[in-house]
Amino acid sequence: MHTDGSADEDIDLRHHGDTEVGEGLRDYAVNVRTGMPPDWLADRLRAAISDLAAYPDPSAARRAAARRHGRATEEVLLTAGAAEAFVLIARALRPRRAAVVHPQFTEPESALRAAGHAVERVVLGKDFALVPSAVPEDADLVVIGNPTNPTSVLHPAAAIAGLARPGRTVVVDEAFMDCVPGEPESLAGRLPGGVIVVRSLTKTWGLAGLRAGYVLAEPRLIAALAEAQPLWAVSTPALVAVEECLAPAAIAEAEAWAARMGAERDRLAAELAGRGLYVVPEARASFLCLRVPDALGIRALLRERGFAIRRGDTFPGLGPDWLRVAVRDRAANDALLEVLGELGI
Amino acid sequence: MHTDGSADEDIDLRHHGDTEVGEGLRDYAVNVRTGMPPDWLADRLRAAISDLAAYPDPSAARRAAARRHGRATEEVLLTAGAAEAFVLIARALRPRRAAVVHPQFTEPESALRAAGHAVERVVLGKDFALVPSAVPEDADLVVIGNPTNPTSVLHPAAAIAGLARPGRTVVVDEAFMDCVPGEPESLAGRLPGGVIVVRSLTKTWGLAGLRAGYVLAEPRLIAALAEAQPLWAVSTPALVAVEECLAPAAIAEAEAWAARMGAERDRLAAELAGRGLYVVPEARASFLCLRVPDALGIRALLRERGFAIRRGDTFPGLGPDWLRVAVRDRAANDALLEVLGELGI
Repeated sequence: MHTDGSADEDIDLRHHGDTEVGEGLRDYAVNVRTGMPPDWLADRLRAAISDLAAYPDPSAARRAAARRHGRATEEVLLTAGAAEAFVLIARALRPRRAAVVHPQFTEPESALRAAGHAVERVVLGKDFALVPSAVPEDADLVVIGNPTNPTSVLHPAAAIAGLARPGRTVVVDEAFMDCVPGEPESLAGRLPGGVIVVRSLTKTWGLAGLRAGYVLAEPRLIAALAEAQPLWAVSTPALVAVEECLAPAAIAEAEAWAARMGAERDRLAAELAGRGLYVVPEARASFLCLRVPDALGIRALLRERGFAIRRGDTFPGLGPDWLRVAVRDRAANDALLEVLGELGI
Repeated sequence: MHTDGSADEDIDLRHHGDTEVGEGLRDYAVNVRTGMPPDWLADRLRAAISDLAAYPDPSAARRAAARRHGRATEEVLLTAGAAEAFVLIARALRPRRAAVVHPQFTEPESALRAAGHAVERVVLGKDFALVPSAVPEDADLVVIGNPTNPTSVLHPAAAIAGLARPGRTVVVDEAFMDCVPGEPESLAGRLPGGVIVVRSLTKTWGLAGLRAGYVLAEPRLIAALAEAQPLWAVSTPALVAVEECLAPAAIAEAEAWAARMGAERDRLAAELAGRGLYVVPEARASFLCLRVPDALGIRALLRERGFAIRRGDTFPGLGPDWLRVAVRDRAANDALLEVLGELGI
């Protein structure tokens, strides 16, 4: 583990899985559940189209998010996806020393840099486990993902809570936390002082196109983020989605999916490891992070055969030997295993 | 006309028409066309719900906006409504002296203040006509609405273009320009250097809940605004709306509506003026601005009778004697005239 203050300008932080997918390619690159949204949710969203003439009113969705996590409404801010949350954080806070724990989703660092802040990278070492002492003691802003994109590693809640201290804000990107049944390592329900939890509905509910997410934090931080947010920032359909997807029945549906996905993920991980690939252990999200020599070459061969896999080299702390693979259903995962076998893997 | 450097903290810039409407009130307060969106548009938006799993791809909508105004795609940025555009402008520019021409929509000033910029108010005088010499010569950012909310005044394009000069950015809020058939005073198609045109689909198409708008400017300004914008800022349904509403058939439909609305607006204005009210002359948008003694008292009496009218006193440059009335269809306008008659007006 090391810290790295350089900008590493040769890494394209703005590269995301969606640009890896193209006409005729089977998508193992984008971290969004396929075949979504489900009919019941799509029906509610279609019904909301009749209510578009009015300006969005976030109050019901805000209450739903608060109820879901046992928080007060003053501890909730709805956002146009997690991506907007990172921009608001970068705009509202004035860090003297910002540390981003990598590898992780690159938008938080991008947003901080776009807002004019210097960013130090704390790059995790073996198996990407969190070593809290690697975070500079005087960092007043720390950003970490849990479970982490792209490594799929779930850090203990206590380790992340332990990063909090007076004068420091800790941002936890929990965009994939609903991949973990019961969410035992989530800080959403505890919300220690100075901790900002960022949540998303995008991945589990197939709503990447709708831009729906939210932030949980103490009221003074929520007020500061709200001040930086455009008026009417979250659309009416997105507000409907928040309300619907955080209702108890939907939470139960997502939990059942997460359990099934987890079993299939573990099967896929075991298969890949059995073929001699290094799969980052203890994967808990809906994707696997792999190290394989000449990963970019393998990715190119897979694309020729119609399979889109996300490159890993655009994540700080990974490199040209890394790939990220979204977990699909058993048949789709078997298709991927088969074509890998044809490539001698 | 005068300039006013004070913050006027007693004016609530964040008050908008949508908060004036309540259960059981007939809405003459919100500047959004009623009975919208039309069926053909709602059908397209419902169809888009099936495409939500993918991240939004703005390229087709961006091309549609460019084509609509005869611009290059590099001169277009799609935004989550005009409100987001004002926040991006406030974040991306570093004005030394920002002047906002009032009365006007209050979000541009709010966004500038939230971003830490001081704002000078240039308050227009008689009939709210633009007197370019009232804008401080060394202002490097000037914000003006055309046609103007809440006055309904349409300034000549040449007068606004004449505000542009080297080292100055001129922001023209054209959110209501599609109320003016043929748009002769729009700067969207000419786009002088340093001019940023902000457009909205909200009002004419009844899409306030969807958050769809765009900005036109020279490529260097568009690039600066894009840098301040969150990733995937505009949702897929909003992108579909932009594409659909800027197609030639939709433009023709909006023009026909604007012509009908304009005739009804002029009838309503003549009726009100005939009763001795001062109606700001030459109204060209979908609302009227009225001066009447004890406007807040009249507003309260109207609310008791189930009619919501927007107060004018939250607009800098107006005051407690002002009201804004949205133009509805003939029957609704007659109902308002009738209840005003009952109040002795």
